[in-house]
Amino acid sequence: MLNKKDYDRLKAASMAYFEKAGIVINEQEKAAFQVAEYNLGCVDEIGLELIEYVNTDRCCAKELVLLPGQTCPEHRHPPVCGEIGKEETFRCRYGTVYLYVPGEPVEHLQATLPKNRAQYFTCRHEIVLHPGEQYTIYPNTLHWFQAGPEGAIVSEFSTKSRDEYDIYTDPDIDAAQDRTL
Amino acid sequence: MLNKKDYDRLKAASMAYFEKAGIVINEQEKAAFQVAEYNLGCVDEIGLELIEYVNTDRCCAKELVLLPGQTCPEHRHPPVCGEIGKEETFRCRYGTVYLYVPGEPVEHLQATLPKNRAQYFTCRHEIVLHPGEQYTIYPNTLHWFQAGPEGAIVSEFSTKSRDEYDIYTDPDIDAAQDRTL
Repeated sequence: MLNKKDYDRLKAASMAYFEKAGIVINEQEKAAFQVAEYNLGCVDEIGLELIEYVNTDRCCAKELVLLPGQTCPEHRHPPVCGEIGKEETFRCRYGTVYLYVPGEPVEHLQATLPKNRAQYFTCRHEIVLHPGEQYTIYPNTLHWFQAGPEGAIVSEFSTKSRDEYDIYTDPDIDAAQDRTL
Repeated sequence: MLNKKDYDRLKAASMAYFEKAGIVINEQEKAAFQVAEYNLGCVDEIGLELIEYVNTDRCCAKELVLLPGQTCPEHRHPPVCGEIGKEETFRCRYGTVYLYVPGEPVEHLQATLPKNRAQYFTCRHEIVLHPGEQYTIYPNTLHWFQAGPEGAIVSEFSTKSRDEYDIYTDPDIDAAQDRTL
């Protein structure tokens, strides 16, 4: 479960990333800053920090922050509420992102598989995103991603976000866990 | 009609804005850089520069650039192809934006109404956006906007963009005009 100490530390680190990248976050957004800890108890290894700009019935935009080596675990966005599932474009703004989707596997991953949980990271087709590069993930497509050694900021442009319905490969992950304190 | 001299000049100016704001644009996007000149022949007064990151059937993201005082003319996004019309969120990244939508009019506009065409700017409810501030415009809502004295960069997060169907208040505007050279 997310604790105040981790939340405050990761929020401060994320704000420093935004400052370095010249991305301005307003006070209301800072107050609603989110940390996805996934209920695994290893947030520096498997975790994600985020600011949600907008999330209406049709459209969503977020900034995601990953600390060096931090990983967003493998998941997909299934059909929900009569819609075909979330579509999202990840655009790297800062640092490097190693993104994995279904397809031809690479022999040597640039990402480091999380300890003791490698079996829950099944996609091995690698896409490397540098600043200004992006990739679109269509509904119900498994994906996971990890920041390189400098950490990363990723802009996400998507259809409506309903994170609580995401399906994770790792059965220990609680998708509906609170992300704020 | 857009000419090569204006296109090259506005492209160079826009790239300088992106650089100043720390926004990385890739080579493919630079090659597809767009200038909306609106067929009015006064692009520095009424015009808009843009980079389109993604535009799928469900989701679109762009960066818009406005030079100091440059204005995007009043328009709305009507229902098209059985959908209820484009929804868009404008997030100011750099500079100041004066945005006008239907509602209580202000007495003294911060924007300067374009010469000889003031009658085509009917919305006078003013929203001022600084970096980190944003506003969502729902379908079929008239709106126009102008950059302050430093120019502006605006991130647009929206549903599918079909600019050729936009309805402009000014009858001399050609919404379907080519934006690249």
